[in-house]
Amino acid sequence: MVRVVILGQGYVGSVFAIGVERIKNGELGYYGIPLANELPIKVENIKIVGSYDVDTDKIGKNLYEVVKRYDGNKIPESLKNIVVRKGIHLKSLRNLPIRAEGLEDDRSLTEAIDKIVEEWKKMKADVIINVCTTEAFRPFNNKEELIKAIENDDRERLTATQAYTYAASLYAKDVGGAVFINAIPTLIANDNAFLELAKESNLIIFGDDGATGATPLTADVLAHLAQRNRYVRSIVQFNIGGNTDFLALTHKERNRSKEYTKSSIVKDILGYEVPHYIKPTGYLEPLGDRKFISMHIEYVSFNGALDELVINGRINDSPALAGLLVDLVRLGKIAIEREEWGTVYEVNAFYMKNPGPAEKGNIPRIIAYEKMRQWAGLKTKWL
Amino acid sequence: MVRVVILGQGYVGSVFAIGVERIKNGELGYYGIPLANELPIKVENIKIVGSYDVDTDKIGKNLYEVVKRYDGNKIPESLKNIVVRKGIHLKSLRNLPIRAEGLEDDRSLTEAIDKIVEEWKKMKADVIINVCTTEAFRPFNNKEELIKAIENDDRERLTATQAYTYAASLYAKDVGGAVFINAIPTLIANDNAFLELAKESNLIIFGDDGATGATPLTADVLAHLAQRNRYVRSIVQFNIGGNTDFLALTHKERNRSKEYTKSSIVKDILGYEVPHYIKPTGYLEPLGDRKFISMHIEYVSFNGALDELVINGRINDSPALAGLLVDLVRLGKIAIEREEWGTVYEVNAFYMKNPGPAEKGNIPRIIAYEKMRQWAGLKTKWL
Amino acid sequence: MVRVVILGQGYVGSVFAIGVERIKNGELGYYGIPLANELPIKVENIKIVGSYDVDTDKIGKNLYEVVKRYDGNKIPESLKNIVVRKGIHLKSLRNLPIRAEGLEDDRSLTEAIDKIVEEWKKMKADVIINVCTTEAFRPFNNKEELIKAIENDDRERLTATQAYTYAASLYAKDVGGAVFINAIPTLIANDNAFLELAKESNLIIFGDDGATGATPLTADVLAHLAQRNRYVRSIVQFNIGGNTDFLALTHKERNRSKEYTKSSIVKDILGYEVPHYIKPTGYLEPLGDRKFISMHIEYVSFNGALDELVINGRINDSPALAGLLVDLVRLGKIAIEREEWGTVYEVNAFYMKNPGPAEKGNIPRIIAYEKMRQWAGLKTKWL
Amino acid sequence: MVRVVILGQGYVGSVFAIGVERIKNGELGYYGIPLANELPIKVENIKIVGSYDVDTDKIGKNLYEVVKRYDGNKIPESLKNIVVRKGIHLKSLRNLPIRAEGLEDDRSLTEAIDKIVEEWKKMKADVIINVCTTEAFRPFNNKEELIKAIENDDRERLTATQAYTYAASLYAKDVGGAVFINAIPTLIANDNAFLELAKESNLIIFGDDGATGATPLTADVLAHLAQRNRYVRSIVQFNIGGNTDFLALTHKERNRSKEYTKSSIVKDILGYEVPHYIKPTGYLEPLGDRKFISMHIEYVSFNGALDELVINGRINDSPALAGLLVDLVRLGKIAIEREEWGTVYEVNAFYMKNPGPAEKGNIPRIIAYEKMRQWAGLKTKWL
Repeated sequence: MVRVVILGQGYVGSVFAIGVERIKNGELGYYGIPLANELPIKVENIKIVGSYDVDTDKIGKNLYEVVKRYDGNKIPESLKNIVVRKGIHLKSLRNLPIRAEGLEDDRSLTEAIDKIVEEWKKMKADVIINVCTTEAFRPFNNKEELIKAIENDDRERLTATQAYTYAASLYAKDVGGAVFINAIPTLIANDNAFLELAKESNLIIFGDDGATGATPLTADVLAHLAQRNRYVRSIVQFNIGGNTDFLALTHKERNRSKEYTKSSIVKDILGYEVPHYIKPTGYLEPLGDRKFISMHIEYVSFNGALDELVINGRINDSPALAGLLVDLVRLGKIAIEREEWGTVYEVNAFYMKNPGPAEKGNIPRIIAYEKMRQWAGLKTKWL
Repeated sequence: MVRVVILGQGYVGSVFAIGVERIKNGELGYYGIPLANELPIKVENIKIVGSYDVDTDKIGKNLYEVVKRYDGNKIPESLKNIVVRKGIHLKSLRNLPIRAEGLEDDRSLTEAIDKIVEEWKKMKADVIINVCTTEAFRPFNNKEELIKAIENDDRERLTATQAYTYAASLYAKDVGGAVFINAIPTLIANDNAFLELAKESNLIIFGDDGATGATPLTADVLAHLAQRNRYVRSIVQFNIGGNTDFLALTHKERNRSKEYTKSSIVKDILGYEVPHYIKPTGYLEPLGDRKFISMHIEYVSFNGALDELVINGRINDSPALAGLLVDLVRLGKIAIEREEWGTVYEVNAFYMKNPGPAEKGNIPRIIAYEKMRQWAGLKTKWL
Repeated sequence: MVRVVILGQGYVGSVFAIGVERIKNGELGYYGIPLANELPIKVENIKIVGSYDVDTDKIGKNLYEVVKRYDGNKIPESLKNIVVRKGIHLKSLRNLPIRAEGLEDDRSLTEAIDKIVEEWKKMKADVIINVCTTEAFRPFNNKEELIKAIENDDRERLTATQAYTYAASLYAKDVGGAVFINAIPTLIANDNAFLELAKESNLIIFGDDGATGATPLTADVLAHLAQRNRYVRSIVQFNIGGNTDFLALTHKERNRSKEYTKSSIVKDILGYEVPHYIKPTGYLEPLGDRKFISMHIEYVSFNGALDELVINGRINDSPALAGLLVDLVRLGKIAIEREEWGTVYEVNAFYMKNPGPAEKGNIPRIIAYEKMRQWAGLKTKWL
Repeated sequence: MVRVVILGQGYVGSVFAIGVERIKNGELGYYGIPLANELPIKVENIKIVGSYDVDTDKIGKNLYEVVKRYDGNKIPESLKNIVVRKGIHLKSLRNLPIRAEGLEDDRSLTEAIDKIVEEWKKMKADVIINVCTTEAFRPFNNKEELIKAIENDDRERLTATQAYTYAASLYAKDVGGAVFINAIPTLIANDNAFLELAKESNLIIFGDDGATGATPLTADVLAHLAQRNRYVRSIVQFNIGGNTDFLALTHKERNRSKEYTKSSIVKDILGYEVPHYIKPTGYLEPLGDRKFISMHIEYVSFNGALDELVINGRINDSPALAGLLVDLVRLGKIAIEREEWGTVYEVNAFYMKNPGPAEKGNIPRIIAYEKMRQWAGLKTKWL
């Protein structure tokens, strides 16, 4: 059994909850879950035990009511048993057309964190999934500075994700082991402050930024070109969608949060810099969760020949990430059993856009996949 | 030094010759050559020593004159020293608007083959590259039947490629080792008749059908989806071009030659059959050697979500293959030194669409690339 | 009131029936109907009075049962009142995986035609819509030859569509006026044999081949380039789908039926010939009625600059045509009132891929649209 | 003879100059010029008599030297006779990596304008083409305010284009007639201040913003959908390029200059608002003048069916506009002869993205084309 808490009951968190329950009800296969049911811990062993949000329209409602906004299908009745609790806000939804409140509104940050840790203890959580909306943030890289910010109640310096991770470390220390999965761009597995804290606290961090959408595909296409020693001249990657995350990214500060990522995948895969334009481009409500992507790659082949590739797609954003989470919570439980405190690059390299720790780079996902299987104790597929 | 003979002095053979000479002249980098100059045998060590064709408009002309039809750039003067010789026709250009003649027009097949073997001995050839136009053919799979067809002068049963491979085996036996690279769809490395012959004759066969164009990219995209356990519902892959090979493929029999390939890459990579339409679709002269490709892939993600990818490209056909040949001739020489008579799956798996031997399948190219590097004695890149 | 008979109760005929009834029930707007509800004859005035097919699995069933195979939505109950009758087969479904029978199986062609004419009289039909599966056919262009083929029971020479049109002319003569809408490629409005017959018989023919899919869009894109005097070098237009019509087109003879069309739209719009590849390319069952199209156009701009356009689409085939039929049946009724026996180019030019009569060509659809509005007595939109 | 002055000797101005001279030398056909050589005034009658820029690297050089930076072809020698003069800057190149100076640097604005008017008189200019870099601007809409800004030397309020147009009105008044073609987004033909001035001064203004790139194509595709009454749900139009104009548009203020355009083409063509994302998206140097465009349109067809179109293109920006200018200068001369002072909607509607006057909207280009032909005294093509 893996006991899971969801932070941010939006699109991804909701599709995750629906999908897992539908699988447990035998209504759905394992498509979109990379390891399907190969792991010793089965999908059917996942139990959602808690959910947090700061949207006043969700707090206090049961999960059944909340998730049905995101999916026209039949919603599993089992979700009626979980109530969405008030979480930490720290202005993470500022500028968005959502009325929000946080536990810290009427208490100190330390008190809010302690309250949450107590709740997690009652829930007997193994894994905490962070799927909050993309935040504007600054990394710490220094544990002392982080602790000081918490103690000083420095609400300008901290984001919800950073506070939640801190809470997770307190919790893990108390109960002897836990996992924090950071599926959004805020640097956590790439921030040494948090990694140091994790190692001391029996916490495992997976992160950062779930590897969905156009970027992993771009990585594999670039690897394809690299292996043929084709010289890439330019890369364009547009994407536009209509879910809250695209709306959040229209705010400049948040969009910049994507820039804290390490020297992009381009350099990591190709071995040289290429002029590129790769970023979330816009928000268009009618596209909904099924974003439109458009990529253009121009490269030089043998004898100076110039080739072009254009890749377009309509891709459901949230199910892609939710499917990865189904693996990550189970791999997290395995990591607890192995006491691999800190982070696990082999897991991050396949599942995350910006795999921590910071000193490691991106590798082609196909290679990362095989290495992840090896780490998980599974047979490689083609190696 | 690797001494190379080219069979079929068309687009690919010409771009290969031009590119190699331009590199030797320091006019061109190594782009489009997968292993660049990492091998102990350098690109500069390649020496073209012979060329064959059956187009009466090419026979007897020097290489400089012939190749300049295919490339607007400055042509290296060094190509003036090689004369295009008459090769074996066996109706390989039938139906095409080309006046052709073959050595066998006024002698028996055995005599024609013997003549060629004698010429190769004088040229001291190490590697024979087959880049003839796509043929309509039937595989043998039985060495005795093959030998009988040669002895009986059975011109209906044999294609030029099959006769050339037979010649290569005679030659290899005589000189103690040689390589035959089959870059076209005719099954050679996948035909046990030829593999058996090769093993007995100190011949190494690389083949079949150089892995260029949309297919290797499709393989990597499918591998990308497979690793995320996305269920592919349908695959479309159109391609259309204006070079002689596309013209040849408008003839039904030749197009069928593509169908002798083993259970397509789809099953090999995904592990299940998918309804697909993957074939050369048409000929359109103004597109020239820069073909237009269009792919459509629809797949199921987590929670039943339906995603779509569309990939379009303009890709120069001949330089892509010519760049692979620059590696293959050098890997061939290494294989001779190692006496790996027969075929080398590790080489074929990366460089060929239909890697021999027949009992082996396709694997994701990114994996094949690393295994090929290991075989070649090079460090893997990401493993 | 317009009383409509449907010939061929497949995808298009079914979506037409569903859509019209849903509109009458107030469940659906007018989207996809070019003239919406601008005409004096309203969509609500359309009444389906008969339906014919040769699929043994449909004959004798009511329309409600048949159409629900094609649409997952709620089907209007009103369709339960119409029974699908046995029509004329003449091997129109030969080679397709469908068990078919026709009225002519146990009587002469003349008797079969007479039986149908009698039925139409009882139905008081105004408009007969032909949406049979694409046929292999030869045009007549000579009225006497056509009549002789009917009289001689020449089942090899005639197709179902040709026999139905003949029946329509007998019917129109009897009742004083009727319309035959030929929405498939068989040449009818482009065959002088039928036009002559129509003029003598008070019949109006609209045709041929409903202007849906990629072709009208291509026409408008080419017109766009023509007006800027850009020189088009090549045109590719692939399309692939999974409905019965694409399956039918995989049979060579039927595909050729597309070739009877006049000198393609390319010449008509651009004023010069361009190398092009424009044809239904393949059948892929999972794509269903929502076909995938891919177009590539390369052209020369000012100062010799070379531009490229690639257009991809997922387009629902049957609703597009069904929407046009909603206009055509009403325009047909108007044409009866005006006694415009023969055919009406102004209507065909906008609604048909191959607008009859044969001596007229294609014009940009945007222009055709305005002229059609003028014919229909509506204000032009932008002229 | 049409005597032409170019303001802004960048990519467009240079391709225009090269193309016109190459045509006069018989080296180039009329492709990319909408009216080819149908007008009574021939392309060969165009004479470039002056050129202005503010780039210190261009001022004082002859046109031959300047234009050869933009085109690898043979440059006509005739361009050696024209020297690029210093123009008005008014910070139009601010933020761009270009060292610039203007006539107004060491004199008052009024003096600078007078100097230019005197030069134009010596050149006997008929037509002044404005192809400066896109500016950040505010429209006037009030003639008195405009005149006051000039008189008060208000350099913050005015842009180069506004000052040039004012100069053109002084010049036209003096010589009895002239044309100012505003091919950039600054509102001139849409600004009543300038139109009023033009009518009083015998000036004709064509503008604003030459109709090239993705927008006119989008207009025609939307018109195509509108005529079929398909309901458009969302429109995406990305474009990215590597010329100075894309670089300029990365600056927010300049990008906003695109927003002064009237209620976009979307509403004008479809008749209703649609959520859309249509704007220059980015700058990527290696793409050069051949921009990459990507459009996505989703719409509802009959019976609620949902269709999608994706249009990608590589389009040479500058030749497209330069080709239009070849018509515009000749149409301008015709307008002088007809004394149509002010502006000419029939010309603007086809050639401009934002056709003035402000109270008029966009119409489908195909219709606009025919109306423009009628205005020009040419036979319509399909009407």
